[in-house]
Amino acid sequence: MRLAKLIIDSAQLESYEALLKEGIETAVRVEPGVLTLYAVSEKDHPTHFAILEIYADADAYKAHLQTPHFIKYKSATKDMVKSLQLVETVPLVPAMKIK
Amino acid sequence: MRLAKLIIDSAQLESYEALLKEGIETAVRVEPGVLTLYAVSEKDHPTHFAILEIYADADAYKAHLQTPHFIKYKSATKDMVKSLQLVETVPLVPAMKIK
Repeated sequence: MRLAKLIIDSAQLESYEALLKEGIETAVRVEPGVLTLYAVSEKDHPTHFAILEIYADADAYKAHLQTPHFIKYKSATKDMVKSLQLVETVPLVPAMKIK
Repeated sequence: MRLAKLIIDSAQLESYEALLKEGIETAVRVEPGVLTLYAVSEKDHPTHFAILEIYADADAYKAHLQTPHFIKYKSATKDMVKSLQLVETVPLVPAMKIK
């Protein structure tokens, strides 16, 4: 699991949000191994995003990278993403859910 | 909802983790308005934590601050937390869960 931190070109923010939303909703719906893609933007810096990404295992992550919806998201947003930082993380309470 | 970013004193990391774990597990179990407290540490910087905090509403958050488990966590970890940054966030997909 990991935390992705992104900064988006402000001129393309609405397009980026629509593409990200479509990408994560599709992934969580059709891929059993994508346990969540919880995306937030900062209230005071709406171009700054964080995505909490939880996959069932390494194979689920590898499979995710090959899906048409991920490839579409990645290529369509290529020029919208000014910076992308991927931080590998460890959950403190692995069984934690969202009510 | 928001993202809390913390840096912990490395000499007190184990004690901090135990206190945080107890605090978030208790809050999520006994407070219906605490929807999640998803805490992660960075694999390469184990003293760096992020907590995704989701409350049902502002009242649920205010009530959380008054609970004995939160007050215990806050006072017990006071000297362990080297830095605390609270970032107000907006969810991209508010209905998103963790499978």
